[in-house]
This record gives sequence, C-alpha cells and structure tokens, in this order.
Amino acid sequence: MASNRGVVYKGPWNLEVNEIAYPTFQNPKGKDIHHAVIIKVVSTNICGSDQHIFRGRFSVPVGHVLGHEITGEVVEIGKDVEFIKVGDIVSVPFNVSCGRCRNCKNGNTDVCETVNPDAPVGAYGFDLGGWLGGQSEYCLIPYADFQLLKFPDREQALEKILDLTLVSDILPTGYHGAYAAGVTTGSTVYIAGAGPVGRCAAESAKLLGASCVIVGDMNKERLELVKQAGMETVDLTLDASVAEQIEQILGVPEVDAGVDAVGYEAHGHGDEDYKKENPNAVINDLFDVVRASGGIGIPGIYTPSDPGGRDENAKHGKLTVDWGKGWLKSLHIQTGMAPIGRYNYQIMQAILWGRISMKTIMNPQVISLDEAPQAYKDFSDGSSKKFIIDPHGMIKNRS
Amino acid sequence: MASNRGVVYKGPWNLEVNEIAYPTFQNPKGKDIHHAVIIKVVSTNICGSDQHIFRGRFSVPVGHVLGHEITGEVVEIGKDVEFIKVGDIVSVPFNVSCGRCRNCKNGNTDVCETVNPDAPVGAYGFDLGGWLGGQSEYCLIPYADFQLLKFPDREQALEKILDLTLVSDILPTGYHGAYAAGVTTGSTVYIAGAGPVGRCAAESAKLLGASCVIVGDMNKERLELVKQAGMETVDLTLDASVAEQIEQILGVPEVDAGVDAVGYEAHGHGDEDYKKENPNAVINDLFDVVRASGGIGIPGIYTPSDPGGRDENAKHGKLTVDWGKGWLKSLHIQTGMAPIGRYNYQIMQAILWGRISMKTIMNPQVISLDEAPQAYKDFSDGSSKKFIIDPHGMIKNRS
Amino acid sequence: MASNRGVVYKGPWNLEVNEIAYPTFQNPKGKDIHHAVIIKVVSTNICGSDQHIFRGRFSVPVGHVLGHEITGEVVEIGKDVEFIKVGDIVSVPFNVSCGRCRNCKNGNTDVCETVNPDAPVGAYGFDLGGWLGGQSEYCLIPYADFQLLKFPDREQALEKILDLTLVSDILPTGYHGAYAAGVTTGSTVYIAGAGPVGRCAAESAKLLGASCVIVGDMNKERLELVKQAGMETVDLTLDASVAEQIEQILGVPEVDAGVDAVGYEAHGHGDEDYKKENPNAVINDLFDVVRASGGIGIPGIYTPSDPGGRDENAKHGKLTVDWGKGWLKSLHIQTGMAPIGRYNYQIMQAILWGRISMKTIMNPQVISLDEAPQAYKDFSDGSSKKFIIDPHGMIKNRS
Amino acid sequence: MASNRGVVYKGPWNLEVNEIAYPTFQNPKGKDIHHAVIIKVVSTNICGSDQHIFRGRFSVPVGHVLGHEITGEVVEIGKDVEFIKVGDIVSVPFNVSCGRCRNCKNGNTDVCETVNPDAPVGAYGFDLGGWLGGQSEYCLIPYADFQLLKFPDREQALEKILDLTLVSDILPTGYHGAYAAGVTTGSTVYIAGAGPVGRCAAESAKLLGASCVIVGDMNKERLELVKQAGMETVDLTLDASVAEQIEQILGVPEVDAGVDAVGYEAHGHGDEDYKKENPNAVINDLFDVVRASGGIGIPGIYTPSDPGGRDENAKHGKLTVDWGKGWLKSLHIQTGMAPIGRYNYQIMQAILWGRISMKTIMNPQVISLDEAPQAYKDFSDGSSKKFIIDPHGMIKNRS
Repeated sequence: MASNRGVVYKGPWNLEVNEIAYPTFQNPKGKDIHHAVIIKVVSTNICGSDQHIFRGRFSVPVGHVLGHEITGEVVEIGKDVEFIKVGDIVSVPFNVSCGRCRNCKNGNTDVCETVNPDAPVGAYGFDLGGWLGGQSEYCLIPYADFQLLKFPDREQALEKILDLTLVSDILPTGYHGAYAAGVTTGSTVYIAGAGPVGRCAAESAKLLGASCVIVGDMNKERLELVKQAGMETVDLTLDASVAEQIEQILGVPEVDAGVDAVGYEAHGHGDEDYKKENPNAVINDLFDVVRASGGIGIPGIYTPSDPGGRDENAKHGKLTVDWGKGWLKSLHIQTGMAPIGRYNYQIMQAILWGRISMKTIMNPQVISLDEAPQAYKDFSDGSSKKFIIDPHGMIKNRS
Repeated sequence: MASNRGVVYKGPWNLEVNEIAYPTFQNPKGKDIHHAVIIKVVSTNICGSDQHIFRGRFSVPVGHVLGHEITGEVVEIGKDVEFIKVGDIVSVPFNVSCGRCRNCKNGNTDVCETVNPDAPVGAYGFDLGGWLGGQSEYCLIPYADFQLLKFPDREQALEKILDLTLVSDILPTGYHGAYAAGVTTGSTVYIAGAGPVGRCAAESAKLLGASCVIVGDMNKERLELVKQAGMETVDLTLDASVAEQIEQILGVPEVDAGVDAVGYEAHGHGDEDYKKENPNAVINDLFDVVRASGGIGIPGIYTPSDPGGRDENAKHGKLTVDWGKGWLKSLHIQTGMAPIGRYNYQIMQAILWGRISMKTIMNPQVISLDEAPQAYKDFSDGSSKKFIIDPHGMIKNRS
Repeated sequence: MASNRGVVYKGPWNLEVNEIAYPTFQNPKGKDIHHAVIIKVVSTNICGSDQHIFRGRFSVPVGHVLGHEITGEVVEIGKDVEFIKVGDIVSVPFNVSCGRCRNCKNGNTDVCETVNPDAPVGAYGFDLGGWLGGQSEYCLIPYADFQLLKFPDREQALEKILDLTLVSDILPTGYHGAYAAGVTTGSTVYIAGAGPVGRCAAESAKLLGASCVIVGDMNKERLELVKQAGMETVDLTLDASVAEQIEQILGVPEVDAGVDAVGYEAHGHGDEDYKKENPNAVINDLFDVVRASGGIGIPGIYTPSDPGGRDENAKHGKLTVDWGKGWLKSLHIQTGMAPIGRYNYQIMQAILWGRISMKTIMNPQVISLDEAPQAYKDFSDGSSKKFIIDPHGMIKNRS
Repeated sequence: MASNRGVVYKGPWNLEVNEIAYPTFQNPKGKDIHHAVIIKVVSTNICGSDQHIFRGRFSVPVGHVLGHEITGEVVEIGKDVEFIKVGDIVSVPFNVSCGRCRNCKNGNTDVCETVNPDAPVGAYGFDLGGWLGGQSEYCLIPYADFQLLKFPDREQALEKILDLTLVSDILPTGYHGAYAAGVTTGSTVYIAGAGPVGRCAAESAKLLGASCVIVGDMNKERLELVKQAGMETVDLTLDASVAEQIEQILGVPEVDAGVDAVGYEAHGHGDEDYKKENPNAVINDLFDVVRASGGIGIPGIYTPSDPGGRDENAKHGKLTVDWGKGWLKSLHIQTGMAPIGRYNYQIMQAILWGRISMKTIMNPQVISLDEAPQAYKDFSDGSSKKFIIDPHGMIKNRS
C-alpha cells in the first residue's frame, strides 16, 4: 500500500503537511463501500471556504485533512464501479453526493440527504459528514460513477489543467451564482467580491451572455485582474456608494442581476467602514442595486454558527437586512452552495473548446503540497493568486 | 355626467363613504389619456392590504379613494381602446400597469416602470402613482386593452361573481405565492397566515396539485374555515413549534414549499408571543420548516417604511433573519407583489369550469358601499369573512 | 433458490405462462452486478405497449418474459445497495436506467445511455437491452437505490395498490404527455386516445389544473369511463371532425394543449376511416386543433421499424404530416417515452394524500398470472379494463 | 405631406421601386388608429423570406410594398403614443403585434391574434394582415409603444447600425432557433443552412455559450464566412452524411441541439441530391444527428401552401419525416417564427456592449433603394452578402 501525505488542520491559523493514511474502501463510519474509487491527486486548489476554516470561522476536527477542490487520476476502483476506469483523469465535484436520494435525483447534489448524518449537505475536507479532504497525494471518492466527471482525453486534460482544475468547485460555483441570479444574454450584472469565486462568477456571467459585468471589492490587486479581463469595477474603499459607481458605468444606478461572492465575512464599504466586518453589507447592497424583477444568486457562504462573529447576531448567523426594500422589488433569490454536478460537464466543454479561458482573471500559481500552509496565509492576507497544489509534480504547463 | 360615491380615507381608523367625482379620461397627473375605460363597479373587495392603510401602517393622502380589488362593467371607452367593449364584464388586476415598459413586456406587471413616478409599482387606492381606488360606484381603468380580463359571458360571470371577484387580486396573489414557492404535483406546503390571502394560497396550492396543505394562524375561526375546506392546520397559539406541529401531520418536521401570507404585521407564536407583533417571525419560521432545496413565496407585504413599527428596525423595514440557517438549505425565494395579469386568465378558466370553488374557505359576505367602514373594522378585529362591496346591488347570488 | 413463473413470448398472438429461472445478480450480458435487488412481484399490469409486442408489431426474442409495469416487495439486495431494504414495497420505473450516465444525471432516464448497447433506451420485457420483464413471480431490478421508489408504509401501500400500481409506468407516462404539452392551471386539453394511457393523461391533466379535458376515441366503452370521471369526449366514429366536436364543447375549435396517447397504430376517423389504420392521423389532428403557441406531448409510441405497417413508409416509421400548418402555429412538441423517475415520487404523494383517485377512469381488474394470456386478447379486442396481474395473490382490495 | 418610394411586388421575379403613398394613421382596414408612429426608414434589409415572395413561393398581392426588417427614426406619433418620441431611433420587430391579446401578453408576439383577420400571425410586407412593408422611405408602425425597441443613443445607434439593423428580425430569429433548441453553456450545435438566418443562429449559439458550432450548407462562399468567424462547417455537396462529417469534428456523430435555418425550400445533399429540392431533407437530418434528449429549433419557414412545391405533398406543406426515429430520441421541438420582442432588448445590449459583432459572418452590403431589385436577384443566386437598404443615405459607416 502506497504512502500518503496531506494538509492537516491543527487548529486556527495552524496547518501542517503530515503523513496520513492511504485511503481504504470505507466510508467515514467505517462501513465497506463498493461504489468508491481512489484517486492520485493531480491538482487541488485552496478555496476561499478553506480560509474560513483556517481562520477559525468554521470548525473542523483537529487532524482533519483539508481540501475540496480536487482533480485526479483514478488508481483503484470499487466492485460496483462500472463506468469510471483506472487511468481516467477526473474532476471531483466538491459536494459529496450519493446520486440515490430524492435531492440528488432532482439534481440538487448540494443538499444530498445521505452522506452526512447531521444535515443534508456533504463536502470533502469540512466537518460535513467526515469525508477527508483532497489536499493530499491520494484521496477516496465515493459514488464514483455518479459523481466523477471524466475528461475525454488525458493529454488534453493535463494541458488545460490550470482551467480544468477550477471545474471541481469554484468555476461552477461562480457560474451557479450568476445563473441563479438570472444572468442571460444582455444582462447587466454586479458581482460583490473579486476573490476567486467572484472572478469566476464574472467570467461565468460573460459566458452566459452578460453585456456588462461589474465587480466590486476593496482589494485593488484583485480588481486589477478584473480590469485586465475586460470588465468593470467598483472600488469599495471609495465613499461613492455601489449604486453611484454603477450609475457612472451604466447610466442607471441598477443592474439586472446581482451575485454575492463574499458571504458572512463581508466588510462594509466607504472610507472607514470597508475595514470593518459587516455581515449584512453585501445582501443590503444587492437589495439596493438589483432592479425590480431582478435576481440575486448567493454562492457566498453564510453559516448558522460563526465562532468569530462580531456580535451575538453574527455568531448565530442572523443578518439584519433591508427586507422591506428588497420585498418591494419582486426579487428572486437563490441561497446555498452550488450543485457542481449540474454544471461541470457544460463548463468542461466550454473550456475544452476554448470558449472560456480563466488564466488572466484567476492568476493561478502552482505550488507543492509543502508550500500549502504558506499559501493559506498569503491568500488570507489578500493575495490575488489562485493557489493550485500539485502534489505529484504532474503539472507541466504552469502558467 | 353620472354621480359617484366611494370609500374615502380620512386618516387612520377613519373612513367615510362620500360623494366623489365621476371619472374623466385623465391620468393622476391630469394628462388626457386615450387607453382608459370607465367601469361601473360590480364588486370590490376589502383586502388585507387595505387594512394596513386603515390601521395607519401605510400612508395614503387624506381624501384618497380606497380599494384595489375591482370587477366591473365597462360603460365608456377611450379612443384607443380597440378590443374591450362597452358592456363587457371585466376583472381589473390590482397592479396598474402600462403594458409598454420593459417590465410589463416581460410579464412583470407588478413592477411597471411608468405608472408611478416614485417607484416601479402602481396600484389603485394606494399612494402608488395616485390612481384612485375602486371602492366606489365608478372608476377609471387605464391601459384597458392590456390590463382588463374580460369574462366570456355576462350571465355566467354574474352568477359566479363571488368566486370571480377574487381574480382581481387575492386569488392570483395567493396563487403566485404558492407557484413561486415551487408548489406542484405532490408538494407538501406550509402557508403562514389563514387570512384571505393565506386561504387563497391554500386553495391555489391544491389547484397546483399539492398533496398536503397546512395553514398556520392564531385565529381559530379562520383556521376552522381551512379545516372545512379539507386542509390541515397549525395553531400558533400553542407552544408546540411550527415544525413540531408539521411533524405531527407529515411524519417529518418539514415541507417542500412555504408561503408567507402574513407580511410585516406578523406576530410571534407560542403561549405568550402570539399576542406580540414580531415582523421577523414568519420568515424565520419558513427558514425553519422548508426543506433543503425547497422554495418560499412571499406575497405577504413588507415595506421599507412602517410608521407603526415596534422599533427602529421595524420602522425602516429591516428584519433580523436566520440567514445562515436559510442559506445552508439552498432555498429559492420570491419576494414582492403578484403580477395578476400573469395568472388571471388561467384562474378564471379554472373557476368557470368548476375546477376550483372558493366559497367554503373564503366565507364571503356581500355588503353595500355604506357598510364598508364597519366591515373594515370587523376585518381588523379578526373576522373570518371576506367582505365584498356591491355598490350597485348587482349581485343576486349572495352566498 | 425459489421457483419462478412468468408470461413468456412465444411469437405473435402467442403467450404462455411458463416456469422461468429465478433471478440472479447478473445483467443480461452475464456480468455480476452489485447494485440490483430481487423483488417478489406484488402487481404487474398489462400495458398498451405490451400489445404492440403481442400483435407482432414490436419484435422481442421468443422466450422473453414480458411486462414492464412492476410493483414489488424487495426480497434480496446486492452488495452495493445501501438505502433500499429487504421488505420494502417499491415501484419500479419501466425505464431501465443507470443513474450514472449524462442523460440519467440530467433526469432523462428514458434515454439512459448504458443499459442497452444498441440504443440509448432500456426497458424490462422489451428487446431494449435484454432485461427480462416482470410479469412473473420474481424479477431482478438493477441500480436499485437509484431506480426504485419506496412506498413509505407497507400497509398503506397494499391498501392503495390499485392506484399505486399505475406509478411504474402508465400514470407518469400520461402525466408526462400532459406536462410536456404545457398543461397547467386553466388549460383546455385534447387527449387523443381513451386507452389506459389516454385515461391516465386525462386524470393527470386535471391534477395539473386543466379547466376542460376532452378525450377522443372510437371505443364507446372507454369513452364512457371518461365521462364517468367527469370529462368531455370526442367520438371518432362520427363524421364531425375533432375540431368541430371541440368547438361544440368549448365554443372555439381549438385547445391549449394536445396529447397523443395513441401512437403508430392509430386509426383514421369519421364514418369509414375510423376502421382503417392511419399512423399519420393523430399527429395531424393535433396540428389541427392545438392553438397557436400551444404544446403537444407525445407519449404514444412510434417506432422506426414496424413489421406490420400498412405500407413502406409505415414499415420504416415515416409519417406524412401537415408540417407547414403545424409550423405556422409556433408549437412546442415533446416526443418520446416518459422518464418515470422524474414524476413518480410526486404522483405517489398525490395518491397517498387522496388528491387523485384512478379507479373510476381506469376500471382495474385484478387477475392471476395464468389469466394473463387471455387478458392480452381481451385488451387487444378493446376491453376498457386495466388488467393488473397479482402473481402471489397479495392484493386484498380488488376494486 | 412628404413623398414616399418603396420596393413594390409586381409578380414573381419582378420588383420595381415606385412612388407609393406616404403613410397615414390608418390600419389596413382603413380604420383610424392612435397607437401608431410614422418612421423614416434608416435601414431595411432583404431577408431570406422575402426571397420566397420574389420566387413566387409565397403569394402577396401585386402592388404590395415588401420588407419586414426595418430600423427607423420616428417622425410622427399617434395620440396614444406615450413613451416613444419623435427623433427616437427604433428597431421594428418584424412581427406585427398588438400587445393586447392573450398571445401577446404571454410574450408570443409571433402569433398575435388581432392584427391579421385570417390567422394568428402578422408581418409587414407579407400577405399577413395587409401591413405594408418597410423597404421604402417612410413606413407606418402600429402599437408603437408596445412594439418598438428604442436605441438608447442616436449617435451610437447610427455608428453600430450594421449590427443593430439585424435586430428587427434575422438575429433574434437565429437566436430563437438556437435558444428554443436548448443551446446553452457548452452545447454542441448543428445548424442547417449558412444563409443569413443560419449565420445569425451560429453567432447566437456562441453567444448562448455553445462549445462547438457546426453549420452545414452547399454554398461554399457562405461556408467560408462561417469559417472566418471561427466555426466548423459541413459541406452538403459531399457524399459523406451530415452525421459522418459531424463525427469528424466532434468524435461522435451527434450534437446536443439542432437548428433548421432553411425551411421548405431545402435541398437534398450528397453528390447529386444537393441540386434537387427536397423539403423533408433538413428535418430528417436533424432527427438523425440530434442526440437523445436533445432539442430542435425551427426558424426556417414552412408553409401550408407552396404554389411551387415539387409534388402534391409539397404544394400543401406536407412532409414525410422519420417520425419513429425522432420519437425514440425524446426530442423537444419548437416550430414557428421568432417572437422578436422577446429577445431584441437583450440582443441590442449584447451588441452595444460589444459582446457580439456580426460583420465578419454577415458580410453586409449597404445599397440604395433603387439597387434593391438587383440585390434580390443576387441573393437568390446565392450571394453571401447581407443586403441592407439605406433609403435616405443615412448610413455613414458602411462596412
């Protein structure tokens, strides 16, 4: 049996790369399973939601292996795996999902009812069912035939890996935000947040046909990437409101659709407030700038329990929102994680045929497993890079 | 020119039936219009949203004529009215809408961009564009060809008027709540509020194919109507939570879809709290009981400005909601008023062919114009009746 | 190992009830599978599509076991079956589907890409992948966790079995026809064919909220069942056209939506033609009577190869249709089999909560396995009964 | 009153530019109307459907003014026109539609029920309600507030006129074909026909996110334009079937979605057949190459009456189609003209923000009114140009 190493959570702000057990065909409860495969990890990215864990704002057990953005090569298959083969290069949707419950059958793999005994949601590398993360050399993926997206050609996949590695989570997550907000041909869109999800939402909005895509943030380096990709920006450090800045761009202070790519660790905006955490800020901005009959997609994460919340409400995931204002606008709103499996085939096709290219806006940086802890820190400090861990040195085309 | 009388707002808790001007072909700004008709009002109902005005929780100018649930007979037509004819019996969608702006063309007549200079929303009898209400003998209806729903047969219409009178607002409003919540064949549904909108939402949910419809309220008389119509109830005066009461009915503490048919004048629930206003209560209940991947429709009214709100947040339409909890469930949420014109033809057909009958659950009472002020008081005191004003004594079949 | 008996195809018009092998955990290619269960058949209905086989119009290998409308009790489970348990009472969607291919993941289980090497479609008891039918005592069902619909309560299930037995095919098939045609609240609907699928489509249309449902056929006994269920009828033996008969009912010669519940063994209509096969007749009727912007659902079966076709075109599944006429109407058309798994949970819920009752319109007759060959003949001769085979005498409530 | 000139139909293959009457505010029945405007035509394109008239395959009265692709400047407005102003530059959807009937209210302006007494469909320059065409200096447009799309800025509009002129018909028509076929992110698409509609469908498919767009034709010059725009082609003069040529491109002989941009004047394909008219050819190709569960959009025109049809079936719009083959694939099919008003705002936005540029693929040529008759001939002979008539010499930017 091969050895294995992974990024292990030791407590807030404390990660280590340790030896870990090589996967076996058992689920987190220790039951033998036949529907899983073991993959050799080709690439595994650090995600903004990993940052919540790193900063102690999501709890996971000490000793847990992190990472849920996983692309790999299949090295072993379970007895009931019929269509995925050893050697396949596959993208792993970050949602653990069985494909057999009512929600999964309806395409809602983000709220699988069986993979986590505590709540209808599962993910690798979180405290959501106990599934180990994939920031490691090898990893177990259950329900492989249902879950895995096989790339059609190994060589092509490795060549385009810097884009394809985004298909496991962040690109379909951004796409879901835009799609659920109703972004379509000709839409004007405001995306709150120029982190990796926001930038993926921006490119997704363009792919969906948006006419004008505007991204707001307070991090100038990240906004610069947005501009380089040919989109518009709102600078949240300015005193001009989001609506005022949008009016400068569009001639009207509103957009057809809005995306929250920030979540509960949001900050206020304007001269001083942008330095202070304000979990209500993004939702209220969106209620302000999305036009009547418009839509809002919220891939940005909120949680019912935030140990680091600024006050009692925040600690319990309570937001104070301009509900009356939002109500009057007849908005449609979609909350929750993205069901990656609903979109990943389509997005893979768009990448493989060159309809979308993510390098300019994502600014990827390939690192080794051992460099991961430092990359977590850099990301938390506002780096505009998207860190892609390459545990086996398989990525040739690194930029 | 004929005389005219109507229900006139004199201030909170103060209505009078006064002589008012007979309509002329002018819009509220005094501009001549050619697309309008004048109708003789056949029936005009008192709505829960009229109650907000009556209780001083929505401001309208003193002297304004109330009423937005209007069915009438066309007595005069403007020069550019081509398809509506004198003598037609018509249902008037409560939304004033032009049929010519981007929102109207997309079917979003609830947020017409042109009929109200202050905001993209218009309605008769509110402070939303200055359009006079229809609790009167005669009333002006603009954009008549676009707006009016003609009943195919006069005799049939007058015979079924107690159901058809609901098509101008409350029945499509309840339907919109259920439809937007995703209610479809087999759905389990929780409807917050057994007032007229809630009861219409309940019958709409059945019409949409719901398997089990559950309505919650603290008013026993209204809940009794729900039971008589063959549906389930949750009693909000009990200490058992909504989820617990649902579990008693369904075996699980959750439903597929939820409808807020209450809005901002909500109360808490349980032994003591049900007597106290709590604008957050309904939304948080729905976040609690709607299942992961479910939907919420919110026809219940919220407003950015409530002079009678219990505290500063309430006065400005701010709610404190369990956002983290709701977010995790991947919910789709629809806010806002119903676009009546999107549904009224369909619902008329269902009534005319006997697919839906509203009398049992609605408990209609036909009254004269002069009885309207007392009926407002009775409704505010919790009467389970739906009051239908018959200004000309045209309704023969009164129960 | 238990013994087994089933309805075996011996050639056109020739069926026998024979001893057959007890199922083993192997697929038709002889490969061991771990995702299957063996069920004891509780009820298995004779379907109109079985009739195509019986009459030699669909070829299946001699010796094949027929039957694809199957409800059963699970008696053995494969190693990778995690959620279905021994003792569960389950409905089997007639489509064999893996839940793991692109089509299945998108909910299109009617065109599963893996269960039949010849074409993307699988079914029990046909020549579509080699899966044996369920008109037998015991039967193998693959991909059980994905495919099977578990009834929540055994006693309740057996009590409502005459309705629930329809959930494996014919009721969701009729529902799919109506749903895909766009039937919704208030729709007027014409359903071609008063056989079991047509009658299920009719009740489904009502469940979907249709205002007026009209069913056409030339079999007076079947039309009588439709009338007893409170719907309208068109008599195809009359010389009045379908449009003329619809006009008598609705006042206009058109409907919002049409359903083809007949398929390629259609007959003409009018005095003489109703006795002659005319595969083009139904489609052209629907192009005639569905209104502009309306929809057509086609659950009635067509096939590219009909050995008994009346001419060369018919033998190769070619139809001559009024395409120009249909084109001008801006119709949406859905062809193909129903994906049962997309609807069966919802329809089960509607049955369990009493929102739909099928006995009046379906006229069910419970028979033994040995009575099946005679029932095939009676059905082919135009019996208005829906024959339900009860191989183990488990159905107590027989009417 | 100003003079007026227009392209007048004198019989098959015979057009003249004649003096015609300046428009008055009357509909074709001579009734005064108040909802219309008179426009000075800025650009008006020759369309493939004009060719059907030119070639005697659609009948229009001798003396009728042709043209339905119209962009203009408003010079007079009717009494009931409230939002369109004199001086506005507007795009005219080719569908004449009232905005007041049931179909228009539902967004189905392609099948308006009131503007043509003979059938629910109206268009300028056809025999569909008597509305005169716009290949003229001035033109009457009814229901102006509802119908017209105003370009936000006059200068910008005139600068981008070569793209914006396509918004009145052909670009939304191609878009409708692709959209109705289900084209979305990542789709593979086959478009039958590289004429102007097919080329617009191709760019629309890309705008909708298609991964690979393949266009088939027998005209090498038109296919060349498709290649220059970066898309794939199928050459119908080759003996390799469409499926075989698609397999060369995609690795599989099928696509996710198909568009018929040809209609009833289709030709066969392969060595000899491509020279012969075969109205069944395109539909049967699409049934062959669209994958199971895929979709087909049919903007290509079919007609119930074709005086020049090759045989009795063709003369009456009857097609012989591989229905059994198509049925088995569970296809969704959309027939009919495009409702331009459903898409034109969105597409205008995409053009104004530079998300789509049509010049490469459309090969536009600006001509004078007097050059129109020759351009009709050139187009009929297979020219790859899109002819844009500029009656007043207002187009500065001519390529």
